[in-house]
Amino acid sequence: MNSRAPQVDIEQLRALLLIAPFHRWLGLDIAALTSDELILEMPWRDEIVSNPMIGSAHGGILSALIDLTGLYTINALGGSARATADLQVDFHRPATSGPLRAIGRVVKLGKQLSVAETRIEDADGKLLASGRGAYVA
Amino acid sequence: MNSRAPQVDIEQLRALLLIAPFHRWLGLDIAALTSDELILEMPWRDEIVSNPMIGSAHGGILSALIDLTGLYTINALGGSARATADLQVDFHRPATSGPLRAIGRVVKLGKQLSVAETRIEDADGKLLASGRGAYVA
Amino acid sequence: MNSRAPQVDIEQLRALLLIAPFHRWLGLDIAALTSDELILEMPWRDEIVSNPMIGSAHGGILSALIDLTGLYTINALGGSARATADLQVDFHRPATSGPLRAIGRVVKLGKQLSVAETRIEDADGKLLASGRGAYVA
Amino acid sequence: MNSRAPQVDIEQLRALLLIAPFHRWLGLDIAALTSDELILEMPWRDEIVSNPMIGSAHGGILSALIDLTGLYTINALGGSARATADLQVDFHRPATSGPLRAIGRVVKLGKQLSVAETRIEDADGKLLASGRGAYVA
Repeated sequence: MNSRAPQVDIEQLRALLLIAPFHRWLGLDIAALTSDELILEMPWRDEIVSNPMIGSAHGGILSALIDLTGLYTINALGGSARATADLQVDFHRPATSGPLRAIGRVVKLGKQLSVAETRIEDADGKLLASGRGAYVA
Repeated sequence: MNSRAPQVDIEQLRALLLIAPFHRWLGLDIAALTSDELILEMPWRDEIVSNPMIGSAHGGILSALIDLTGLYTINALGGSARATADLQVDFHRPATSGPLRAIGRVVKLGKQLSVAETRIEDADGKLLASGRGAYVA
Repeated sequence: MNSRAPQVDIEQLRALLLIAPFHRWLGLDIAALTSDELILEMPWRDEIVSNPMIGSAHGGILSALIDLTGLYTINALGGSARATADLQVDFHRPATSGPLRAIGRVVKLGKQLSVAETRIEDADGKLLASGRGAYVA
Repeated sequence: MNSRAPQVDIEQLRALLLIAPFHRWLGLDIAALTSDELILEMPWRDEIVSNPMIGSAHGGILSALIDLTGLYTINALGGSARATADLQVDFHRPATSGPLRAIGRVVKLGKQLSVAETRIEDADGKLLASGRGAYVA
């Protein structure tokens, strides 16, 4: 078996994901899990807005998505991620409508530390933000 | 007048801060503004929990706090920050109770890009997370 | 013409790259330029060693490679990068022999700020380090 | 004894620092070690130049300095840093003459992972670059 083949099925992963009250508040769902990627989806909600003039989502919400998608990607694709050690995010464009899609990929699975990268796209596939987390096992 | 002296008073800054629906949801308030630091305070709320076993706040919430505190620090201390270009966060300890304090300092004020660093402490002054944002003018 | 098609040929790019004394000291060469990637190659030299017990290259050398490869990737693939605003690097494995290959890809071309990601591999294609730079136009 | 008091004397630390061939090539020296900070000094050398028009040091050299100063800061001030997990650097101004000073401070000492921040100044105390490393024990 390939070491990066999914170790959990989508139903298990969804149950794990929704243990977190913040994830339930965000309304997260799992859109897809392949041998390479975990794709999460998040609906819009008005409380996530930062700039009400342009109706853009707060960068902290995008950061949260990148953080959590990376952690679940590591765990879904053969690694072990218990907590985030550090996070790095680049903001590319304002996110002004939902749903948002977060696509996570493994960069490196390690015994102590694993790294994943996540990009966030809008419904048209436009890149809104991207970044990386390092996760402790 | 020193270029880093506060350019706005606390009431103005609070009004600006609370324009953002997400900041109102977080319940943010301004605790202090000196010539060196902007200190924000955030109460606990149950929806921010990530791991319900230990009742710890989601890393995305801490990231949001670091992101936004840096932006307001730049604007309050003589610089111009319109949006976050990128964000970097180190998570040091689980945040398990509130209120959380976010203390922002200017690293560099620039014409195109400014950098601020923020640390988040619990009510006992313990360091929970810290990081930096780069902000476009 | 596709906006990401190479804007310069390899000979021009090599000449630009080798204007920098530090790049000449590193012995950099351009291995390939496609519509998606710029690949640089760097030979080993003994002065880059950090830990003489295992003969591993200094993390600062890998960081330099990630920084400069991203900048030239932006410029080679239709964007404009004059200087690095910030850099983020993850170290995955010790680099213990050369040549090292640095593979750069565009994350986002912007008017003010562009982002590129670079991975460094050893001669066997093993991932040694990876990271991102944000570059000002 | 305070856990952040220097655990090694300057002579020991200098000997450790200069085991690395790359550190000898950089011409590093220890300028000071206090209970809070480790200060390294690096002379200018022509091979570190990136842009020969303005004679500026390569960002990779500044990144190397931030990386290594953080690691030695952790080890000198009571922590354990065996290797860099990841590095983040903000470039503030071109470095155009030496000596450069790198001032390291501990952000967090941890069992698995420690974080240090380093700023680089020119001879006049102007901030040139700053950043953080996370180091595995």
